[in-house]
Amino acid sequence: MRLAFTTEYNGSEFSGFQRQKNAISIQQNLEEVIEKITQEKTVINYAGRTDAGVHALSQVFDFTTNIEREEKNWIDGINSNLPDAIAVTKMFEVPNDFHSRFSAIERSYTYIVYNSRSKPLFFDNYSHWDNNNLDLNILSEQAKMFIGEHDFSSFRSSSCSSKNPIKSIKNIKIEHHGKFIFISIQANAFLHNMVRIMVGTLLDIAKGEINLSVEEILAKHDRSYAGKTVSAKGLFFLGPRYDLKFGIQSPVDHILDRLKR
Amino acid sequence: MRLAFTTEYNGSEFSGFQRQKNAISIQQNLEEVIEKITQEKTVINYAGRTDAGVHALSQVFDFTTNIEREEKNWIDGINSNLPDAIAVTKMFEVPNDFHSRFSAIERSYTYIVYNSRSKPLFFDNYSHWDNNNLDLNILSEQAKMFIGEHDFSSFRSSSCSSKNPIKSIKNIKIEHHGKFIFISIQANAFLHNMVRIMVGTLLDIAKGEINLSVEEILAKHDRSYAGKTVSAKGLFFLGPRYDLKFGIQSPVDHILDRLKR
Repeated sequence: MRLAFTTEYNGSEFSGFQRQKNAISIQQNLEEVIEKITQEKTVINYAGRTDAGVHALSQVFDFTTNIEREEKNWIDGINSNLPDAIAVTKMFEVPNDFHSRFSAIERSYTYIVYNSRSKPLFFDNYSHWDNNNLDLNILSEQAKMFIGEHDFSSFRSSSCSSKNPIKSIKNIKIEHHGKFIFISIQANAFLHNMVRIMVGTLLDIAKGEINLSVEEILAKHDRSYAGKTVSAKGLFFLGPRYDLKFGIQSPVDHILDRLKR
Repeated sequence: MRLAFTTEYNGSEFSGFQRQKNAISIQQNLEEVIEKITQEKTVINYAGRTDAGVHALSQVFDFTTNIEREEKNWIDGINSNLPDAIAVTKMFEVPNDFHSRFSAIERSYTYIVYNSRSKPLFFDNYSHWDNNNLDLNILSEQAKMFIGEHDFSSFRSSSCSSKNPIKSIKNIKIEHHGKFIFISIQANAFLHNMVRIMVGTLLDIAKGEINLSVEEILAKHDRSYAGKTVSAKGLFFLGPRYDLKFGIQSPVDHILDRLKR
């Protein structure tokens, strides 16, 4: 039996999702709890690797098990053993050909910029502070240039190991509430640090620190023309989308739907 | 010359506002920074003592000094020396008879309840988690009974040293956004732990753990009939109000105005 779970986490105190030697990952926390409950050696599949400090509202992971339990028992059993900063939210029984990563057809992220003269006293772990007077019209105008299929070589970290730098941005939306700017991006997939470099570039253009447009930087296929990689702590993984046949309803579907409008 | 400042702080890592021996207070941080800048021994007056873990959006403090500087220089000078969790936001030159505490004619607090089956991963330091299904109508109905002048002996901590337990609640408002319930209270003054016991009592009544009404508990003049003292971390001091003649405009005046409506 293959089970998929949606999970949310505050990434502040973890070294990222993926299991690592000598560092505390979210994957290791989840696998250890599942093994404790099932008494079965478990390696999970997951939709997207998130770096140290990155948060998730609805990551998805799956694994096979012989244990049969009600959803409520699974959820409560896992959550009562997890650290306070990680929680599973829903469970789905999925077909054996489901794979959290390879079945995903779209992924969504929101990046939060705290745009204020004064520092974010309450949101320091959840936002990137920019104290410049940012022009939202410039941000929106430049952001639109990302939409569509492009070679994102200018927007990947030097350590990115992906073979294909061509990704398709389906939607990008900039919203503004009080001191917060929310930059939400939906794509088929992302390269390493791609969202953080995209956002850093938008900010650098809006501040006049870069004089090229997004369109021109995309055409360079060269990381050195793009802007700074903004901090991980402002980045939230909203999660993946799957074909409806898998029946996985994300707890943040209402946010994903709003972003499409 | 007497100067007043508005200040905001994240109370999570402090032992409260008031200076204490062997504990890190917000008052001590502010006084040390002012002394460093002015080279004058300084003791500040402040509008309201806040306990360990309590936050403030607009506390007010004042002190006398012989140093003349522009507002911007004062603000930047103080903030660059303060820890990241404290910031001053505005400065006002006030008459010598002004006193942050004794001149205040009203004080406002908002308490944040995170009402969800799952724990608050991102707001743990800024809310009180209640996973029961809370009836907002009961909360609002009971909260209204606090409005007016009452003896709040049932709603003060056993260590409260105030001589007069009679306080006047001008306004109480319950708002609801997603998983958050905001309980905002405006009064001439508050007793020790009064907001936290008021909120704890409202929650206990809503959950059926207390079978008396707020009106009945007020009439008892006895702490043992009221509910639990909910945690400090959900409490935000929005700040004091002064006679308009002092010219102190709070950065959260727009919130205070909204609460009156």
